[in-house]
Amino acid sequence: MSDRLIYLPLGGSGEIGMNAYVYGYGPKEKERLILVDIGVAFSDMESSPGVDLIFADISWLEKNKDRLEAVFITHGHEDHIGAIGHYWEKLGVPVYARAFTAHLARHKMADRGQPEDVVRTVSAWPEMTEAGPFNVGFLPISHSIPESAALVIDSPAGRVIHSGDFKLDETPLVGEAFEPELWKEVCKDGVKALICDSTNVFSPQEGRSEASVGPEIEALVAAAPNMVVATTFASNVARVKTLAEAGQRAGRSICLMGRAMRRMVEASITTGVLTDFPKVISPEDAASIPREHLMLLVTGSQGEHRAASAQLARGKYNGITLKEGDLFLFSSKTIPGNERGVIRIINQLSEMGVDVVDDSSGKYHVSGHANRPDLLRLHDVVNPVMVIPNHGEHRHLREHAKLANQAGRASIVAVNGTMLDLTGEQPSVTGYVETGRVYLDGAVQIGAMDGIVRDRLRMAMNGHVTVNVLLDEDDEPLGEAWVEVKGVSEMGRSKAPMVDVLEEDLTQFLGRAGAKTLRDDDKLENELRRIARNTARDEIGKRPEVTVIISRLS
Amino acid sequence: MSDRLIYLPLGGSGEIGMNAYVYGYGPKEKERLILVDIGVAFSDMESSPGVDLIFADISWLEKNKDRLEAVFITHGHEDHIGAIGHYWEKLGVPVYARAFTAHLARHKMADRGQPEDVVRTVSAWPEMTEAGPFNVGFLPISHSIPESAALVIDSPAGRVIHSGDFKLDETPLVGEAFEPELWKEVCKDGVKALICDSTNVFSPQEGRSEASVGPEIEALVAAAPNMVVATTFASNVARVKTLAEAGQRAGRSICLMGRAMRRMVEASITTGVLTDFPKVISPEDAASIPREHLMLLVTGSQGEHRAASAQLARGKYNGITLKEGDLFLFSSKTIPGNERGVIRIINQLSEMGVDVVDDSSGKYHVSGHANRPDLLRLHDVVNPVMVIPNHGEHRHLREHAKLANQAGRASIVAVNGTMLDLTGEQPSVTGYVETGRVYLDGAVQIGAMDGIVRDRLRMAMNGHVTVNVLLDEDDEPLGEAWVEVKGVSEMGRSKAPMVDVLEEDLTQFLGRAGAKTLRDDDKLENELRRIARNTARDEIGKRPEVTVIISRLS
Repeated sequence: MSDRLIYLPLGGSGEIGMNAYVYGYGPKEKERLILVDIGVAFSDMESSPGVDLIFADISWLEKNKDRLEAVFITHGHEDHIGAIGHYWEKLGVPVYARAFTAHLARHKMADRGQPEDVVRTVSAWPEMTEAGPFNVGFLPISHSIPESAALVIDSPAGRVIHSGDFKLDETPLVGEAFEPELWKEVCKDGVKALICDSTNVFSPQEGRSEASVGPEIEALVAAAPNMVVATTFASNVARVKTLAEAGQRAGRSICLMGRAMRRMVEASITTGVLTDFPKVISPEDAASIPREHLMLLVTGSQGEHRAASAQLARGKYNGITLKEGDLFLFSSKTIPGNERGVIRIINQLSEMGVDVVDDSSGKYHVSGHANRPDLLRLHDVVNPVMVIPNHGEHRHLREHAKLANQAGRASIVAVNGTMLDLTGEQPSVTGYVETGRVYLDGAVQIGAMDGIVRDRLRMAMNGHVTVNVLLDEDDEPLGEAWVEVKGVSEMGRSKAPMVDVLEEDLTQFLGRAGAKTLRDDDKLENELRRIARNTARDEIGKRPEVTVIISRLS
Repeated sequence: MSDRLIYLPLGGSGEIGMNAYVYGYGPKEKERLILVDIGVAFSDMESSPGVDLIFADISWLEKNKDRLEAVFITHGHEDHIGAIGHYWEKLGVPVYARAFTAHLARHKMADRGQPEDVVRTVSAWPEMTEAGPFNVGFLPISHSIPESAALVIDSPAGRVIHSGDFKLDETPLVGEAFEPELWKEVCKDGVKALICDSTNVFSPQEGRSEASVGPEIEALVAAAPNMVVATTFASNVARVKTLAEAGQRAGRSICLMGRAMRRMVEASITTGVLTDFPKVISPEDAASIPREHLMLLVTGSQGEHRAASAQLARGKYNGITLKEGDLFLFSSKTIPGNERGVIRIINQLSEMGVDVVDDSSGKYHVSGHANRPDLLRLHDVVNPVMVIPNHGEHRHLREHAKLANQAGRASIVAVNGTMLDLTGEQPSVTGYVETGRVYLDGAVQIGAMDGIVRDRLRMAMNGHVTVNVLLDEDDEPLGEAWVEVKGVSEMGRSKAPMVDVLEEDLTQFLGRAGAKTLRDDDKLENELRRIARNTARDEIGKRPEVTVIISRLS
């Protein structure tokens, strides 16, 4: 059998988040494998209440663990690196990344009690790392975090470019610029496939450089009469630096608040990514500085409840209280789904009299992803035989594939679980593997389809009723049915307490139930549940979740 | 004591939605009252799971019911009219509205078994309705629903203009245009206060006319090769008509799908608002028409799970299945908080190969609210002594008040429950009344602060554990503790079933518990709950909600 080159997204294709892509080369079903990125997605109340983090289901990879050579991580964003500490034990192979990313990865390994030394720091292109039949290089590209890289993945079937998240920024301020000449050089002997980020395919304008926000931010901060607070993604180190420098030029002391903000700046300095960050002061010192000479850089641009932004909006945080006339800048966009949390903070700040400036003017934030014209430009620079859109919802992948097709390149929409054969001139679907989501729920991993979260959602919608009955040695009811409710209206249509109405109906049923029903736990439980739900529906128009407890003296 | 004019928002000020504004005139605390609008807000999973609708808490009005003269409704949007059927019984006074709005209000009364004849149809300005010391006129103004009106509220203290929701559209297509000359005439003898919609105060550009979207929609529909489906807010009758006409001109049969879509068109025709709507066909007939000759106008522009859009995105609906190459137009914006539902539909459509066009280009939708320059223009036309911003979150009210202040007008931020005295030259706070939210939960009304929804949210986050113990006549445990879980991981850190671990810890506790504890229901319950929660925390890192059932044979 001849060798083939395969591509299999396990996460990140058909959604934004939890990126995980497998490449393989070798004989069919014996391909040697590498994994590119292993990220997380974030939960929401609508679909995954109580869940801490979401991972791609990598069961397929676990089953084929003996074929896995290595993990390569393109950059340090949570949706590319976040699961490494949780999943490494299941993979057991070396993890390769550039210095800044590797630094973050080691933190994540340590946080989960995993070995840090399996994370190996590699240099950028032209250095390459051998992993089975693959040779992999980290080709620098600009993004909203330092040291983001595309991967050059060479195998006997040819060269593949895996873009990772990117934008075409030639003045990114921190980290490497996009260098078209270098890219052309890398791609000049022909590229089989470009696997390419799709998140911003619907943004019609060319992307703007990180350098464009500096003057705007500087003017805003210079004109502020009182305290200035600014929030952005902590990992956008270039932006954090721009903000800090704007504060410094305006004669303000800079204070970082929030764990992620301090960790990212520290990681950047440690790894040499950041060499000239303004001096910062501690929150304790900040509290004693006149407010017009202070600028806080804080976490929580997405409205996260426990982050510094939300805490400042609720009141005193680290000894600091915002006041009438202070300025709060969101140098960030709100990720869809986070609007309510962000708006809550803005309104709380408004109640304090704080002036909030957000991204609506377009002046204080630029995206880290390639827009539609930028994607086309990268296609042209790389000039691949085929373009495989990745990282995006279905609508993004489809639009990106159309774009490539229109330019005469082969393309295909491959969502999570779709295994493509890239060996020929056209990508072809060669199989499907089961994929899905795994939830980190407190300290344990549960399956998204286990029914646990479904039960929670049902309780959230309808409340919960506990029904308790006691039966004696002869299976005769002892006393009345006993009911407790949670999350259920106390009064219903009959204007009597719900608990009383339920207990009466259930007790009446017990009185008329036959011996056969009373003897049979399953039957009795089903009947009690049915009656409880029907009575509730009549009383309050809802059918709660019901737990039935049957206690027998026998 | 001298008479005074008061203003009291009970809903809609400090939020978008559930508008309810009280005006009063007379001696202090004996003012005769009118209520303007009585709307609803919508629930969300993050704060109010399972809740059907949200109403303003009108306890204050109920307590002062004998002082209430009438309800006036500015227009037929749910956030202005939606609670009338639920609350009318508590108010018991006549309800005045223009024909189209009154038609909708009667439907709502009938839906709740309330008398329809208390809803009285009034004509537009210059007709006025007497209500105690007030004389109230409906002054037409454009908005995204027919027959929207501002109210001219005259009392011995002077003339007040209550804007209602509005935009300054001189070519609204359906319903009356904004007529600056008429407005100037009404306001020429001086206006004490303008109570003014604030929702779009952060939109910097002048609003665009409804007429501007027609040509864009027409071009899009004309170019579509296959089936066309369009969704918008059903109450935006002008848009529905524009869409239908675009279809008709492209030689397509028009089919309305979704109850609200049919109800709104019917209400518009019945009340004479709409005179020349294209002929529509039934869904049954639509199924037999070639898809390139068909256009569906459907409900569900906000991603509502049960509306026509979502059903079409999931598969067959009313005999119709969308296919590769069909066009789906969102002629609407996504209200913040609804993004996830809308995006889900777009991706489902993408999977079917349907081409989705949304509002991102700005070509196929215009807002129904006045933007910042429009607000300033209305301030100038009305030229009031004071501007009281209403209908908006705190940030909107604050910005709107700033805007008025900058132009030299008195203004103040008055959130729900703030009673203003408008008698003098400046608004002044004269008291605060308790306000809040009431939830329609299935068939019953519950208080937002009753703890019911809080319990649901806790169960949604942490799951639920039922603990059952049985004690004999001597208060000795009979057998072991029994546990049932819902929404809780089945396995914990110790790799044994959660239920077994919980039962073991609880049974051990029962074995060592003293007679005093075992005799005391409260003490025993607290201990069992504490142990269950702690064991769960150790096992799975979460503390579930716990219901304890203690059965005693005594």
